[in-house]
Amino acid sequence: MSDEHDTPEGVNEEVVKMVGDWGGYVEAKLGFRNHWYPVRFSKELAEGEILTVTVLGEQMIMRRIDGKVYAIRDRCLHRGVPLSRKPDCYTKDTITCWYHGYTYRFQTGELVNILAAPDSRLIGKRKIQSFPVEEAQGLIFVFIGDMSPTPPLSQDVPPGFLDEDLMVLGKHRDVNSNWRLGAENGFDTLHIFIHKDTTLRHYRDFNFPIGHTALPGAITLVEDPEGPKGVEDDFSKHNPIWDGLIDGNVVIRGPRSNNVEGTSASVGTSIWLPGVLKVNSFPAPGLTQFEWYVPIDESRHIYVQTIGCKVETEEDRIDFAHNFETTWKPHGLDGFNGDDIWAREVTEPFYQDDYGWVDEMLCEPDSSILAWRRLASRANRGIQKRKDLR
Amino acid sequence: MSDEHDTPEGVNEEVVKMVGDWGGYVEAKLGFRNHWYPVRFSKELAEGEILTVTVLGEQMIMRRIDGKVYAIRDRCLHRGVPLSRKPDCYTKDTITCWYHGYTYRFQTGELVNILAAPDSRLIGKRKIQSFPVEEAQGLIFVFIGDMSPTPPLSQDVPPGFLDEDLMVLGKHRDVNSNWRLGAENGFDTLHIFIHKDTTLRHYRDFNFPIGHTALPGAITLVEDPEGPKGVEDDFSKHNPIWDGLIDGNVVIRGPRSNNVEGTSASVGTSIWLPGVLKVNSFPAPGLTQFEWYVPIDESRHIYVQTIGCKVETEEDRIDFAHNFETTWKPHGLDGFNGDDIWAREVTEPFYQDDYGWVDEMLCEPDSSILAWRRLASRANRGIQKRKDLR
Amino acid sequence: MSDEHDTPEGVNEEVVKMVGDWGGYVEAKLGFRNHWYPVRFSKELAEGEILTVTVLGEQMIMRRIDGKVYAIRDRCLHRGVPLSRKPDCYTKDTITCWYHGYTYRFQTGELVNILAAPDSRLIGKRKIQSFPVEEAQGLIFVFIGDMSPTPPLSQDVPPGFLDEDLMVLGKHRDVNSNWRLGAENGFDTLHIFIHKDTTLRHYRDFNFPIGHTALPGAITLVEDPEGPKGVEDDFSKHNPIWDGLIDGNVVIRGPRSNNVEGTSASVGTSIWLPGVLKVNSFPAPGLTQFEWYVPIDESRHIYVQTIGCKVETEEDRIDFAHNFETTWKPHGLDGFNGDDIWAREVTEPFYQDDYGWVDEMLCEPDSSILAWRRLASRANRGIQKRKDLR
Repeated sequence: MSDEHDTPEGVNEEVVKMVGDWGGYVEAKLGFRNHWYPVRFSKELAEGEILTVTVLGEQMIMRRIDGKVYAIRDRCLHRGVPLSRKPDCYTKDTITCWYHGYTYRFQTGELVNILAAPDSRLIGKRKIQSFPVEEAQGLIFVFIGDMSPTPPLSQDVPPGFLDEDLMVLGKHRDVNSNWRLGAENGFDTLHIFIHKDTTLRHYRDFNFPIGHTALPGAITLVEDPEGPKGVEDDFSKHNPIWDGLIDGNVVIRGPRSNNVEGTSASVGTSIWLPGVLKVNSFPAPGLTQFEWYVPIDESRHIYVQTIGCKVETEEDRIDFAHNFETTWKPHGLDGFNGDDIWAREVTEPFYQDDYGWVDEMLCEPDSSILAWRRLASRANRGIQKRKDLR
Repeated sequence: MSDEHDTPEGVNEEVVKMVGDWGGYVEAKLGFRNHWYPVRFSKELAEGEILTVTVLGEQMIMRRIDGKVYAIRDRCLHRGVPLSRKPDCYTKDTITCWYHGYTYRFQTGELVNILAAPDSRLIGKRKIQSFPVEEAQGLIFVFIGDMSPTPPLSQDVPPGFLDEDLMVLGKHRDVNSNWRLGAENGFDTLHIFIHKDTTLRHYRDFNFPIGHTALPGAITLVEDPEGPKGVEDDFSKHNPIWDGLIDGNVVIRGPRSNNVEGTSASVGTSIWLPGVLKVNSFPAPGLTQFEWYVPIDESRHIYVQTIGCKVETEEDRIDFAHNFETTWKPHGLDGFNGDDIWAREVTEPFYQDDYGWVDEMLCEPDSSILAWRRLASRANRGIQKRKDLR
Repeated sequence: MSDEHDTPEGVNEEVVKMVGDWGGYVEAKLGFRNHWYPVRFSKELAEGEILTVTVLGEQMIMRRIDGKVYAIRDRCLHRGVPLSRKPDCYTKDTITCWYHGYTYRFQTGELVNILAAPDSRLIGKRKIQSFPVEEAQGLIFVFIGDMSPTPPLSQDVPPGFLDEDLMVLGKHRDVNSNWRLGAENGFDTLHIFIHKDTTLRHYRDFNFPIGHTALPGAITLVEDPEGPKGVEDDFSKHNPIWDGLIDGNVVIRGPRSNNVEGTSASVGTSIWLPGVLKVNSFPAPGLTQFEWYVPIDESRHIYVQTIGCKVETEEDRIDFAHNFETTWKPHGLDGFNGDDIWAREVTEPFYQDDYGWVDEMLCEPDSSILAWRRLASRANRGIQKRKDLR
């Protein structure tokens, strides 16, 4: 049911006003514009092949040409049909619309010919929207926006992600929730409660409280103009909760091992614009999890899950690849994070009409989430809107 | 397609004005607030078990504790997720949200703890919405509203329903129409036309006209401040129609038996707030049918069908239970009322945008339906709105 | 997502203004009112049988009585239910509503009785909407509107269609696009590009360019007040394109036979109000294809495909019937036009919110489409609206 307060973009302006200094976050249903987003793994797009993905509402078609990936909007300028519906690539560099022969160059988006009307004055004068693409750590990143010059990728990934000695492996899947519920689920210090029965426990010794609250000094805002913008949460400065009590009786207890240092399964998390989480020492000491919540549209996101491992030798690489396939992917990315995925999907309906942003009842440890909402509202490079897709 | 006249609640204000003294009935898409509604049979909820139902747009979770049933809103205060998605009941009296450990007492709705954040100042100071529950005649009734003190159940059921010597049996199912089309279908004197081929005829002798029109004095309004409010229609003061004619020829004839007294299959019906029908001497002499049309949302209702029989001895009870299972349930509640159910579902689209309320073309016998619409608009205790669900 | 510029009819008024002299065409989502539309083939409705069809948003029920077809709105005046849900026809001329016995005469729409309330003053004084029906060339045509007198059918079909020596055969199916995308796909001179691989090539010699552009004098507007209104496009005055080039190389070539005169597969097309295409010499010399795009609702149309052949003798008729079944239906109407159907369905999303009409990027040969949009806006007899259906 639509609301009288809704803008044409489907954002409730009453809610935007009520939340005060994080109104931009409420408006960012489709994500933040003028940022870099990973959309697929490099190995998913071989030379000469074509891929279609939708991010921030944009459907794009990508092709790898002489090793480099190019992306253009998947919608013919002429009558708006998707080029990908029947991709006619008569040359390596171009794609021709199956309907009337409008032909575009992948590298530039230029309309190089209209096969059925080669005398048209449009030829050489019109361009389809094209998107900057970069590849790093085995991921294909696309820049959604029109900012010029394009900011460097390094400003849109967590510190350390681009390190040369880091080997990154991962997977991705589509999740049926808005991207913000993904980001908040990941950064949320209390949601550890949902993982209390995770099978991951069988694969490592855990100190795994049922909750933990940041003490003063745990939360740090990072807003260096030259680097990524984010919020860091240091778990070593947290007060962990080991026992859950109801009416004076312990009803649940978090596992605690004498063999493990530290008070938590991870020593800290951080969340970065445009929506990427870094989890230190996770899913095991020596590893780092990086995960993105890439908006598809207002109610879905691509969950890009990666694990990074410092490697020096070829043997290190083989070891990590083996452990990733046999342990961390099935029990971490699938098992452990499977709990997170259904939590986001179940949370989605409450926020769908925006009133959830004011009707929710946060508690004290959620202050880290509020810090993220404020930083994201302040430091983003733009808000993606439906009208940007026209 | 939404209409320029629609309120945020999705009610067409132009229509509300046009119908005059029953505008409240048009507005009551989600039903009337501050009334008692049966939601399940008592036998469907055993000690310690949990049930989820949606009535008047409210999703609630119920539990039977030490014999008594309690109901709270099925939506965690924190991030709005349904508690029922993975019910964690660590104690008899409480339910803990699976996401972050918010824990509520069923009897009061009180937030008794947050397992993952036990130091929160919210604990003991916040409450989830709870709903008064009563059980009577084998049904679980819930009060939807915030009126205090809660009016007695006896004001929201038809006269005679709570009689101690009445044994009540029944069933329920969801119907895909607004609740008002259920109520009007039941009280409608002309809809007998739809039952002309009912199999129920094989189980009793019927005098079953194809229509009947109330004569002066048949319709009585009941508005005693201390009792239930409703409209009674006395079929003994009706003019029955036995023959259907087209162009001067009889094309259809209602069955009429010399062995049966009276001119109709039932000697009268009555409809009561908040939407419950009583049919005298039906489905057979000596029985009374009571049926509720409980709103689920704007386009569905729970059809709660019951039959009451006066019993004195254990043998009477066994007899009625046997007859109910072998005859009245299959041929009355399923067979006969099956016609009513599809009629409501087929009528639904015409009223969905509210214009049906002014575009319909009622005829003279429909005056009883208009009397009900007016009484319901006048005597209800409130109109349920979407904003009541926030 | 609805737009702030949308009218209650779901038409974007900003777009209507921007397109200037063809705003009426943008508004005609549900088609043009006060025109004749073919809805079924005559052979699909035998004596005494009943058919239900939806055109221009109107659901109607048709019956053949003593050889003649009559159509009334399929919605009882009383409570708005479809009569067709359980058609009770107690006499040859009437249909009785299954719910309360409202009985209508097919020929006039008159309410002739209410079986359950035969004393009602409504009887004989109310009418259900009825629609003029004519049969021609094996098709049942219905007039949707209220213009009086009803304009002759001959003004709403292409010239030649009603010729006595023309034998017409065809088929129909529902297509999931707005009717205008059907009409434009058919009349579009460039869309020949989509048929470049058609199997129809195996059944005749083709001169089949990959595109062609109208030269001055090719396009003729026909607006005789006494006849059909349309736009004719003479392919003999076109510049055909045989070779498709990209970056200086021929990448595709249209077939060209020395055995065939003329430069195109057809010698011309024309489009007529209310939305019917005539293709000369197609699917083969000596044949003419006539096809209608009959609006069902805002996003679907009935595609009525017919082929006409001049016949003089019974042998001619048998020959054409044989060739139609074995060649032109499977390889023309199914094979060749199958490409058109998916193109329309794939184009639909871009135009669904009306912005497609201004965001499209037409090229020079599309001037014939613009001529049609302007003529249709100027010469139609009315625009069908949702409120016409109340």
